[in-house]
Amino acid sequence: MSAIDPDRLARFCQELFTATGTPAETAQIVAQSLVYADLRGVDSHGVVRSEIYLERIAKGMIDPKANVTFVCDDGPIGLMDGGNGFGAFVGVKALEACMERAERFGVCALGVRHSNHFGTGAFYVERAVERNLALIVLSNASQTMPATGGARPFLGTNPIALGFPTGREVPFVLDMATSLVARGKIIMAAKKGLDIPLGWAVDEHGAPTTNAQAALNGAVLPMGGPKGSGLSMAIDILSGVLTGAGFGPSVRNMYEDWNRPQNVGHFFIAIDVARFLEPECFRQRVGHYIDQLKAEPRAEGVAEILYAGEAEDRIAKRKRSEGLILPEQLKADLIRLGSDYGVPWPGDTMA
Amino acid sequence: MSAIDPDRLARFCQELFTATGTPAETAQIVAQSLVYADLRGVDSHGVVRSEIYLERIAKGMIDPKANVTFVCDDGPIGLMDGGNGFGAFVGVKALEACMERAERFGVCALGVRHSNHFGTGAFYVERAVERNLALIVLSNASQTMPATGGARPFLGTNPIALGFPTGREVPFVLDMATSLVARGKIIMAAKKGLDIPLGWAVDEHGAPTTNAQAALNGAVLPMGGPKGSGLSMAIDILSGVLTGAGFGPSVRNMYEDWNRPQNVGHFFIAIDVARFLEPECFRQRVGHYIDQLKAEPRAEGVAEILYAGEAEDRIAKRKRSEGLILPEQLKADLIRLGSDYGVPWPGDTMA
Repeated sequence: MSAIDPDRLARFCQELFTATGTPAETAQIVAQSLVYADLRGVDSHGVVRSEIYLERIAKGMIDPKANVTFVCDDGPIGLMDGGNGFGAFVGVKALEACMERAERFGVCALGVRHSNHFGTGAFYVERAVERNLALIVLSNASQTMPATGGARPFLGTNPIALGFPTGREVPFVLDMATSLVARGKIIMAAKKGLDIPLGWAVDEHGAPTTNAQAALNGAVLPMGGPKGSGLSMAIDILSGVLTGAGFGPSVRNMYEDWNRPQNVGHFFIAIDVARFLEPECFRQRVGHYIDQLKAEPRAEGVAEILYAGEAEDRIAKRKRSEGLILPEQLKADLIRLGSDYGVPWPGDTMA
Repeated sequence: MSAIDPDRLARFCQELFTATGTPAETAQIVAQSLVYADLRGVDSHGVVRSEIYLERIAKGMIDPKANVTFVCDDGPIGLMDGGNGFGAFVGVKALEACMERAERFGVCALGVRHSNHFGTGAFYVERAVERNLALIVLSNASQTMPATGGARPFLGTNPIALGFPTGREVPFVLDMATSLVARGKIIMAAKKGLDIPLGWAVDEHGAPTTNAQAALNGAVLPMGGPKGSGLSMAIDILSGVLTGAGFGPSVRNMYEDWNRPQNVGHFFIAIDVARFLEPECFRQRVGHYIDQLKAEPRAEGVAEILYAGEAEDRIAKRKRSEGLILPEQLKADLIRLGSDYGVPWPGDTMA
């Protein structure tokens, strides 16, 4: 197997998107967000999504030329309309507005309606921590898991991501779905023909299953039972109900619903840490916390205790230098897409 | 077994606290917060805590006369110092400041340092939703669970509570520890001599246990492994690191550390939903979401699908009308405390 340079892969994806009429800036952001996920080992949110994005553009389900506009711009509060644009583009534009206001007012809570799947939450958190902001990112998603007590998918795996500057090389970046595992991981397992661990999901009859395909026909489960179920619903209320986006059943499935846009909603809360403590003081305290964590006695078989985001950062550094190795089927799919849209595959060798 | 009127029990606790020199308003808030927890079936955070609170006052570990003051009051951002007062009093004063600012600016993020154990997060959420605010409440706590990869308690079960007005009789109130179960539930099991389910906790050697006492000597586990572990750390960073309160090991154990105050930190984010949507529109959308949830096909054996806060609200309504039935040992402890502080036990019969 050969590895591909991440920048070349991003350029390839960007060109795929521009070939459909997507403006350059939008195409670049979306391509970056996909390759960012692949670099961090979150393959489920990586370039594997290019095809479905292109298909949704072709069928009028995403407007690649959309602008993101304010519905309400009220100091530290904002509500934006994504115009049914690419989720990552909508997310970045909303984040930029949110960060600018957090720097001005100390905090900003900003909701977004009429968006689409926006990739990993970590992509936004990293941008915020670079500006010395703490960030909470919420998004809803289409129905994939039963609420506690329910027999079929009702809630999305509605993710929450949270991050802080640390003063270390690696920021604290927690990015998690409210399911026990991300549905994308089951999609990848199914693509690879692998089984999944018991407890991740139920089949279409609500019975526990280890078969990835059966799980895709069924449902993933919330983490911690009613806790994950309640947290997912709370995220949906902030991201969807409060913003005017879809919520529950009215967030459309990207893979299955070709009649209406997804109408995904996001919610960002950015906090300027410098308003609470001197930035240097904050960094020292976080650094001290991290030192204490790492000095803890370790469980058997654990070489090092990591904080949220460290493992992904290490994977990203390795993949950035060694290149990305894509599954053969995914590579074949991308080459075919390139051929359909007139974008030559950049070749596999690392530059 | 006989039942006690909740209001009489609250008055009894209030008088216990005033007998130690606690100002009336403070004593009333703290007593209300304890009985509130008992009413909702969260016995672990109920009047069972009176004794430890009194002991900490007696040993100078809580200052019952403390005032809550602003360190920084900057529009939609605030930082307060609890002066080592009663946690519930500090929490309510901070919440009131936070709500007032959220109503003024649309959002408020407010941190608190130098506080103590503040009871249930739901106690604050209910006050906020009454004013048509959404609320996120975070607090750190003393070390009770290992971080993922660690062999001994490092993180607190740092809770998150979240709530929204619903336009229904019962607001959405999610109140959860980041442990798989609250440590208080294990304290109650140990008090009652009951076993705990496997998976809730490890013993002092890090081995899984069903013995409640062994679990208290060991550690509860984060929910969802690294997800709960990361979420707990993130809550600690906002509540403790960012506010100047304790964090990690420097949040003192209420039961074990008699040399220094706990220095608990809290973090509140209140959002005025009316700035995003007309309140009536928001309530209709939440109501529609709830209707959809309740109309879902139910898992086997489930009579009704409940949203977060409903089960506790029903327990509270029943207990308010039928009275609270306290475990015999707890009742004996309270009667003894009353005798120590010259506060007569109000008797068990419902008024």
